This record gives sequence, C-alpha cells and structure tokens, in this order.
Amino acid sequence: MLIHPHGESMSDISEFQRERERLTTLMTEKADMNMKRFLNLDTKVYEDGALPAKQKEMLGLVASLVLRCDDCINYHLVQCYRAGVSEAEIVETMDIGLIVGGSITIPHIRRALKAWDELGRKT
Amino acid sequence: MLIHPHGESMSDISEFQRERERLTTLMTEKADMNMKRFLNLDTKVYEDGALPAKQKEMLGLVASLVLRCDDCINYHLVQCYRAGVSEAEIVETMDIGLIVGGSITIPHIRRALKAWDELGRKT
Amino acid sequence: MLIHPHGESMSDISEFQRERERLTTLMTEKADMNMKRFLNLDTKVYEDGALPAKQKEMLGLVASLVLRCDDCINYHLVQCYRAGVSEAEIVETMDIGLIVGGSITIPHIRRALKAWDELGRKT
Amino acid sequence: MLIHPHGESMSDISEFQRERERLTTLMTEKADMNMKRFLNLDTKVYEDGALPAKQKEMLGLVASLVLRCDDCINYHLVQCYRAGVSEAEIVETMDIGLIVGGSITIPHIRRALKAWDELGRKT
Amino acid sequence: MLIHPHGESMSDISEFQRERERLTTLMTEKADMNMKRFLNLDTKVYEDGALPAKQKEMLGLVASLVLRCDDCINYHLVQCYRAGVSEAEIVETMDIGLIVGGSITIPHIRRALKAWDELGRKT
Amino acid sequence: MLIHPHGESMSDISEFQRERERLTTLMTEKADMNMKRFLNLDTKVYEDGALPAKQKEMLGLVASLVLRCDDCINYHLVQCYRAGVSEAEIVETMDIGLIVGGSITIPHIRRALKAWDELGRKT
Repeated sequence: MLIHPHGESMSDISEFQRERERLTTLMTEKADMNMKRFLNLDTKVYEDGALPAKQKEMLGLVASLVLRCDDCINYHLVQCYRAGVSEAEIVETMDIGLIVGGSITIPHIRRALKAWDELGRKT
Repeated sequence: MLIHPHGESMSDISEFQRERERLTTLMTEKADMNMKRFLNLDTKVYEDGALPAKQKEMLGLVASLVLRCDDCINYHLVQCYRAGVSEAEIVETMDIGLIVGGSITIPHIRRALKAWDELGRKT
Repeated sequence: MLIHPHGESMSDISEFQRERERLTTLMTEKADMNMKRFLNLDTKVYEDGALPAKQKEMLGLVASLVLRCDDCINYHLVQCYRAGVSEAEIVETMDIGLIVGGSITIPHIRRALKAWDELGRKT
Repeated sequence: MLIHPHGESMSDISEFQRERERLTTLMTEKADMNMKRFLNLDTKVYEDGALPAKQKEMLGLVASLVLRCDDCINYHLVQCYRAGVSEAEIVETMDIGLIVGGSITIPHIRRALKAWDELGRKT
Repeated sequence: MLIHPHGESMSDISEFQRERERLTTLMTEKADMNMKRFLNLDTKVYEDGALPAKQKEMLGLVASLVLRCDDCINYHLVQCYRAGVSEAEIVETMDIGLIVGGSITIPHIRRALKAWDELGRKT
Repeated sequence: MLIHPHGESMSDISEFQRERERLTTLMTEKADMNMKRFLNLDTKVYEDGALPAKQKEMLGLVASLVLRCDDCINYHLVQCYRAGVSEAEIVETMDIGLIVGGSITIPHIRRALKAWDELGRKT
C-alpha cells in the first residue's frame, strides 16, 4: 500500500485514479494535434457498436493483461466495473489472458484482483 | 499464396489448417505430461462458462492480435467464424487490438482480414 | 527467395511491396470508420513537423526493429530510402535497435540489410 | 527503498516476499478451477525431471528477465538462491538475458543484482 | 510522488537519477567481463557518427517508449534534454512511439511528459 | 515445407541454416564496428564459464522461445543438439518457456519440435 502524502492511507485503485487524472491533464496540455487525435480515437473505439461497450471493455482488459500494463488493466477494470461486468466474468477474462500470456501475467492478475476487490468493497 | 507441394494452389487459411494439424500430431507425440496438461487447459478455458464460448474466442483473438501471432490469430478467427461472429464484430475486435497494440499490428490485421475473407467465400 | 506464382523470381522487397498493396486494398474495403481514422493518423504522424519526415522515418524504423515486425521494417526502409537516408545512417539506426532490443533483433537486421541492398541495386 | 506501513524500513526483497504472499492468498480465494489448474501446473514444471530443479529455476530466471517482469525475476532469484546457485552462475545467466533481450533489460538486472545482494547478506 | 527516506519530497526525475546511480555502482561491482563489455558498447552506440548524438538519443527514446521501459525512457529524456532537443521534437518523437506502439504506451508517455516538465522547470 | 529454387525439397532446418549463412555474410559486409562488437559479444556469452556451454544454450533457447523468434530458436536448437542435450531436456526446457510465455508460444514449440525431429533423423 502506498503512503499518501497527507499521511492517510488510500486504496491503490483510488490512488491510481487520482494520479491518472493529474497526469492526463498534463498530457493534454503538452499534446500536439496528432496526439490529441489518438486520444480521441482511443475513446471512440470503446463506444457501443456491433459489440456493446461492456464487451469492448473486456477486450481492452485482456489486451492490457497480455501486454502487462498495470495502469491499462486498472483503467479497464474500473470501466468493466461501471459497465456491470460480474466477478465471474472478470476471472474468466483473466483466465484467457493467463493461458495466452503465460505465468508472466500472474503478478498483474494478483494486483488486478486486489484492485477489483477494492472496487467492490466501496460500493 | 503458398505453392502447395502437389502443385495446386490453396487458400492460405486452408494451408494453415492442414499444417497446424500435421504439427499438432508431432507435438502430441513428443510432449511430456506437463506439456499435455497445458494443452488440455488451453482447450478448457475457451469453453462456455460465465462468458459464452463465442465471446471467449473474441478475447482470444484480441489477445493474439496484440501479441502479434499470426497462427494464433488464424486459429481464433476460424473459431470465431464457427461460433457465428459477424464481420462487423470481427472488425470492432480488431479496432480494439489496433488501438491498444498500435500500427505494429497492422500487417497482422491485413493478413487476418484476408483469412476472414477466405473463410466467408468458402461457405 | 519466394517463388512467384508466375514462375519468375523477384526480389523479396518487390514481392513485399506488391503483397502489401493487395492486402491494403482488402483492409480498406473491410475497415470501419475507426480503423480508417487510425490508418489516416498513421500517415499524418510521419509528415514534416518540428522533426523532418526523414528523421521520423528513422524513428519509425528503429521502433519497428525493436518490436520485430519485418513488414513494418521493410515499409520504413523503403521510406528511408526515398527520403535519402544513407547506408551509414541506416546501419547506425540499426545499431541503436540492436543494443536496445538485443540479439533477438539480429534475424530482422539480416533481412533488413538484404532488403536495403536490393533497394540500392535497383536504382 | 519502500517505507513500511509500520515505519521500519525493510529490504526490497523481504517486502516483495510479504506482498507476494498477501496477494497470492487473495488470488487463490478468487480463482476459478482453470486458474487454479494453471497455478498448479506452474509449480509442477519446475520440479526435478530430466533437468534438475536448480537448472529449471535458472531457465525461469532468464525467461523472466527477457520478458522484463521484476516480480517474476525476484521469485526465481529466491528459488535459485535456495537451490544453491552461485553468484557467478547468476551473473552468467543474466549475461544471456542481457545479450538476447538487450539494454532494455538493464534496469531489471540492476534491481535483480540488488535483490541478490540482499539475499546474500541475510544468510 | 515518492516520499524520500529523509522526509523531504523530491521530483521523480531527481529520485530516478539518484537511484540509478546507486544501482549502477552495484551492477559494476558484480558484473563480469561480458556484462562490462555490453555496458561499454551501450555507451558507444550513442556517440556522434553518421548520425549526431542528439538524433541517436531520440532513436533511443522512441525504442524505449515502444518497449515500455520507464527507466530507459527517463534516461534518454535526460540525454535529449542535455543535447538540446526541444519540447516539440520530444512530443513528435512520442507521437511516433504512440502510433507504432499503441495506447499501451500512454501511461509511459504521461509519466515521461511529467519528467520532461520537471527537467524544464529546473533550468 | 519450402520449395527449394533448384526444385528439390529440403528439411526446413537445413534451409534455415543455408539462408542464415547467406544473410550473415551480407550482414558482416555491411556492419560497422559497433555492430561487429555486438556480434562478437553474442558469441562470447555462450562459451564455457561458471556455467557449461550446454546449459547456456538451453538458457538461450528458452529466452528465444518466450520472445518468440523462430530463427533464434532454430539456432539454439542446433547448438543444443551439438552440445548433446537430450530430447527430454529439450521438452522440459520448452515446458518452462510454455508456462512462462503462454499459449502464444505454442506455434513456435510446434515448429521447434519439427526442427528437432529433423536434426535427429539426420544423425
């Protein structure tokens, strides 16, 4: 658990969300037109289409898991949580990531299940 | 297009399926118990559960795409095809893979769309 | 060297360019709006800006090399060739890719230097 | 060095081992049957066979190094330490990882050598 | 922001540079001849040649970005800063990394732009 | 199986070795001093030291497998074969690569076991 500058402890997933917000503001300030276009497209592809947004977030989650990016995993976990994905669905999504990506994904799955647990306890 | 040993040309996806079958036989002959356990588990995780098999194949497809393995992409494309995934759903799954994995996935998407096209024309 | 369907042999780099063209046409036919936006942005980021296009192609080349995508390497090699990059500059760009990405990049460097050699001999 | 919640400082490798234990417990609670099968197999493949467990841990270490996963590197370092691998053998294993995986592995080697140093000082 | 053992906060990039120095000393102590040769070569390839050192650092930066190594990104950012690379050039280099490597690089770009911002404020 | 320009069929592993030789000659011609230093070091790290050359080749094999480079896998397979590694040892080395790197390594294991089979049949 990280120790928050103000002395209180916070859940990792809350800390992740605050830090992400701070850095996204900075990125937007410094981004040129092409970087902004990419960020815009990065939102669009997860919108409802032939596939519902909920299913797209699970696709984003498994892609982030096999590429082993904790920040991306956390982001899609929060989105999955908001879209109503169940814990059993999250675990099966991670099963696919684990078999495809191998044991190297295990530390990310451990942290992701902790983040998922924190999300659930806050509701 | 590959030139088949017997002189006829075949679609890439048919060639892929035959070669895959030949090599899987060899792998099964040489595999020890642990390798067989892995292969067995690799089948189980795609079976119907909290998530339907169809959706799991799309998860397997996007994971294979961002990890950029043509053989794995082809395998899951065939499975998606059999599970009734539509072309619009395939393209949106690839959109997620493309945005997450970047332009480095484009050559794989090109070949995957060709394989998908061949699958459709044979029905 | 690949054997061309019509029986003549061709250089790998020419074959690569023809195949790439064929598949790009298919991809454009099947692409949805988001995929087209990505492809469009993939062109824009290599245009002259604060950095000249020539230097951006070398950046694209080294990124493709460490991610080990032959098609992407070939594409940027051709673009570098057209932009007037010298062989010494190509080799030093590959030195960076080799030290960062390790010996796993060597097979790609071998094929890339063959492709570069073919480009030069055709002028 | 991380600051421990209770105010004392600890070595990174001890902290890693405690955190790993906590998260493994959580993972086991949430895991379904397929995830448990994978974790079980992940233990089996490192057991004595045609190759001794000691050598398998070195294989696990170099695989973790080139895939650049600090947690996996730390885990296999501890296992190598317990299996009696010498420092010279660890360094030569890392040499292979460094040449194959490139300079991108250097930050992981730096941290791994620190962890190895901490393991040695505690004996 | 990390909390420094002595209780003062520091910028992440300063902390990165101190930690890197400490660990490099340890690595040099433990390294064998082959590891030293690699480290030596890792310096040489970035020296002025057919390409100026400044341009080579940008190549190192984009390679580190698509391989997603924060330490390597930070190192090349500092080198780019010292070589006089402008913010617009850094952003365009990151645009190439972002399009090639995909959204999985975004968390690294966010942190890199924060580090770049800190470098600029200290001059 | 590839069709050889002269019309005879050859084993894939023989074809791999001939092509590798041709391209290595070209690479050596075009390489600058830094590239040559890297290639030289790439030989040195596999020589007998604290670890015997045989064991180092297995480390090179598993590293190549999890990074999924067929050419590198083939190269180390040949070296393992020459160093007297048994088929059971090869399979257990691949088990480690498979569990660490996941099902994405399976197509490479299939081709590697075919290459290993060809090596054995020629003796």
